[in-house]
Amino acid sequence: MNFRTDLALEKNETSKRTVREKDGCKVTRIEEDGGVYITLEVGSISDHIDPDDTLLELFTEELASLVPKEGLVLAAGLGNRAVTPDALGPLAAERVLATRHIKGEIAKVTGLEGLRPVSVVSPGVLGCTGMEAFEVLRAIVNETQPAAVIAVDALAARNPARLGCTVQLSSVGISPGAGVGNSRPRIDASTLGVPVISIGIPTVVDASTFAQDLAGDGVPEEKAAPRGAQMMVTPREIDLIIDRGSRLLAMGINRALNPSLSVEEFAQLAG
Amino acid sequence: MNFRTDLALEKNETSKRTVREKDGCKVTRIEEDGGVYITLEVGSISDHIDPDDTLLELFTEELASLVPKEGLVLAAGLGNRAVTPDALGPLAAERVLATRHIKGEIAKVTGLEGLRPVSVVSPGVLGCTGMEAFEVLRAIVNETQPAAVIAVDALAARNPARLGCTVQLSSVGISPGAGVGNSRPRIDASTLGVPVISIGIPTVVDASTFAQDLAGDGVPEEKAAPRGAQMMVTPREIDLIIDRGSRLLAMGINRALNPSLSVEEFAQLAG
Amino acid sequence: MNFRTDLALEKNETSKRTVREKDGCKVTRIEEDGGVYITLEVGSISDHIDPDDTLLELFTEELASLVPKEGLVLAAGLGNRAVTPDALGPLAAERVLATRHIKGEIAKVTGLEGLRPVSVVSPGVLGCTGMEAFEVLRAIVNETQPAAVIAVDALAARNPARLGCTVQLSSVGISPGAGVGNSRPRIDASTLGVPVISIGIPTVVDASTFAQDLAGDGVPEEKAAPRGAQMMVTPREIDLIIDRGSRLLAMGINRALNPSLSVEEFAQLAG
Amino acid sequence: MNFRTDLALEKNETSKRTVREKDGCKVTRIEEDGGVYITLEVGSISDHIDPDDTLLELFTEELASLVPKEGLVLAAGLGNRAVTPDALGPLAAERVLATRHIKGEIAKVTGLEGLRPVSVVSPGVLGCTGMEAFEVLRAIVNETQPAAVIAVDALAARNPARLGCTVQLSSVGISPGAGVGNSRPRIDASTLGVPVISIGIPTVVDASTFAQDLAGDGVPEEKAAPRGAQMMVTPREIDLIIDRGSRLLAMGINRALNPSLSVEEFAQLAG
Repeated sequence: MNFRTDLALEKNETSKRTVREKDGCKVTRIEEDGGVYITLEVGSISDHIDPDDTLLELFTEELASLVPKEGLVLAAGLGNRAVTPDALGPLAAERVLATRHIKGEIAKVTGLEGLRPVSVVSPGVLGCTGMEAFEVLRAIVNETQPAAVIAVDALAARNPARLGCTVQLSSVGISPGAGVGNSRPRIDASTLGVPVISIGIPTVVDASTFAQDLAGDGVPEEKAAPRGAQMMVTPREIDLIIDRGSRLLAMGINRALNPSLSVEEFAQLAG
Repeated sequence: MNFRTDLALEKNETSKRTVREKDGCKVTRIEEDGGVYITLEVGSISDHIDPDDTLLELFTEELASLVPKEGLVLAAGLGNRAVTPDALGPLAAERVLATRHIKGEIAKVTGLEGLRPVSVVSPGVLGCTGMEAFEVLRAIVNETQPAAVIAVDALAARNPARLGCTVQLSSVGISPGAGVGNSRPRIDASTLGVPVISIGIPTVVDASTFAQDLAGDGVPEEKAAPRGAQMMVTPREIDLIIDRGSRLLAMGINRALNPSLSVEEFAQLAG
Repeated sequence: MNFRTDLALEKNETSKRTVREKDGCKVTRIEEDGGVYITLEVGSISDHIDPDDTLLELFTEELASLVPKEGLVLAAGLGNRAVTPDALGPLAAERVLATRHIKGEIAKVTGLEGLRPVSVVSPGVLGCTGMEAFEVLRAIVNETQPAAVIAVDALAARNPARLGCTVQLSSVGISPGAGVGNSRPRIDASTLGVPVISIGIPTVVDASTFAQDLAGDGVPEEKAAPRGAQMMVTPREIDLIIDRGSRLLAMGINRALNPSLSVEEFAQLAG
Repeated sequence: MNFRTDLALEKNETSKRTVREKDGCKVTRIEEDGGVYITLEVGSISDHIDPDDTLLELFTEELASLVPKEGLVLAAGLGNRAVTPDALGPLAAERVLATRHIKGEIAKVTGLEGLRPVSVVSPGVLGCTGMEAFEVLRAIVNETQPAAVIAVDALAARNPARLGCTVQLSSVGISPGAGVGNSRPRIDASTLGVPVISIGIPTVVDASTFAQDLAGDGVPEEKAAPRGAQMMVTPREIDLIIDRGSRLLAMGINRALNPSLSVEEFAQLAG
């Protein structure tokens, strides 16, 4: 039986794990095959009140631990903006503050001197652009030579209880679409030539996986994917999860890369 | 066992039915309790090519048969615009051409004389407005005295195979939310005082219903609704289904009420 | 010469005025014909950093002074959501927390007991609904009997320097469209039967008014309104002004009506 | 005096021009400095009824005359999606059908064999991405080696009467932002290494240019750009112009590159 999931937590029961609890959040660190996966388990992002930015600061700290200390970082929002549960990456990208161009006179006038350079892109999806996301990213990496890429993507889980309740970070990039059975070429150091840190939040369960989990292997494919149409299980609050989740991830990227600016300043500058 | 659905087709196996086939579309007419339900079964609205407007004309004809021949009609787009699979009604309402105000000099100047009066409203949902949809509609019915209301709403099905593949019309109004276990007061002649024709397309299956259907009554509620969070099964193409479905329903309303204008003229006038 | 404007500040040079300065904001109070107009002049809402909510609290205070102390309040977002500079009202309405339905068991369970009842509506515009905004509002006022209406609308100014830099409150309602030469029936106590407090931010200057102001009466109409097409002067940052302005006005309404909830709680509850 | 405009029609009164009339549309061809500019003057795109696709076919034909007959074409939607009058390019890009990836088995199964390869990108703007549009495009051109780029952009005019009423094509690329005084590096054969055909529709007049045109050089900068905030003159119907204009340009690109597919087939395939 093959349960689809993008979550390391749900995959490798035998991997090396360390778990700690901080500020009401369960933080799991999984190491395998030379990579690190960090998972933050929280209450639903659509309901959660984070007035003191506890979750944000925890996420920022974990992200900062995975990113090289210096040099240009390219933030990439993966996924399809026109498909609600897949829009997490593109919407997060809109909220990351690009700073690569803020230098010299402009930096002085705006009071934004000494920022770490950040660039931002949403490479789109093959069906809309005719290009694999890794092709677009490789092109931009070759042109602009960042020290690392941070790739944001909506993830698939096996267990609906995790939807909107988990943030996953990884040091080894991502296979977009793997969790919903539409796997695209990996986006990682092997395809881009620079380290790729991936971050994401699970927003869907593949309906076939959900069906198998409930009723076993005997479920006819037609039940969960009639006429080959892919079905997904999502929370009714998916639009809110995408909105709040993309804000959380974008702000974490902002704060991890340019800690000299406050949450309020980023909110002001990045729209 | 209580399977949630808004589709008469899925409810009443014993009701009086007549079925006919027209232009590749199965049309089922169900009569019960003094009401009529008409269902058009088609290929998925997200894939379907309707270049000759075959489906549109069939839908228009069935709708015209349910609507009083004269007088002001209020088109009401039910549901929550901010929740993707629930936005069918509000988006359809945006595309219905309001004509109630086109009279006298304006009608002459624009060449739009002799149109049947149509007004349009999206009453919103209780959580956003603090008012039940039927309260808002009753208020507007009292103020403007239409001969009938056409209510557009996204529906829930029991069978995922019907999502985006069925159009349902009814002569007896609607209970918003009934198919997903969040039933609101009925919108019908008893609450509004005028005939209510309802039209809709199924866009979700309640995940609890999906789970029960697959695995029987024994499924723990926690599996399909973790922490009480409502989960839905939707096609991956849900945004496209909402976009195309709302256009189809709106154009059908336009053509049923003002057949003197062509599809192209409505596209031009109603944006 | 007839300069179009919705701003009392720009209209009545001879009216009774009192001006005070508070927290870097110039507050002008104009009384005439039994009505009160309050204007807050600030830096541009698109640039302004309000991290301590200074402007918000000032606006909240002035708004609270105009609203009856008790009873249901209907918040109405006027204007056309599909026309960017006119979308201020509808977007603000989306962010006002409706509370009229939060009572009894629901209030207990959610910890939201004792809130003042608020309902919310966006009545749309004549061209889209076939109904004047005042008709829709009168219908809902008759049905739900609020103690007052707060009407939010985008305003027109005469001077481009005021766009996005002024918040106007009034105790005597509003004539939608007056500032751009498309005047609709007034929305005030005379049409609705209850007090109407109006609030707004100027987002456009009518291009004919701008042209007259620059070049005098001799400007041919064709220059500023070619082929009768209405032209507007707006800041390039208009989308950002609408986004931030609608948030400011909505939060002010929330805080003025239910001061027991904090800004963070409203942000959490009202999406 | 320096009037800002992106329209060749408004710039070079002395250039070599040929004018013809076809299907109620004035077509002007301007040659200078080795480049060709073609302008179609029509009624406003927001009002115009084009039921027989007359304008579309005329535009398609002119575009086809400028594009190389063979090889991959990269369609690039320039501008800022979050600024209404600047969103023409990104919205057009969403509606261009990407075909570069449709080959082999997929092409057979979908019946889409033998299509010309097309790829699509929206490179964003410097303030949002930290990268000049030409950098992003150069990167993708280097990676994917197209035979040509078609760049779509919103244009600035000097005369408000042209807004939404003109389509301009050029064989020599574009300087984004030139018409509103925010000139970015050129996007043309010199920066990308392949031919760049640019197409666009004027959507704004810079308010300073409008003011100068009305009142001469003596207009204080403060009048048209208070506190340095850039002001624009746009039609009230700008959202509709952007919607319909982006559809027109996208469909023209589709039809010029893959004439074997009909308008209806593209509408179906490209969403």
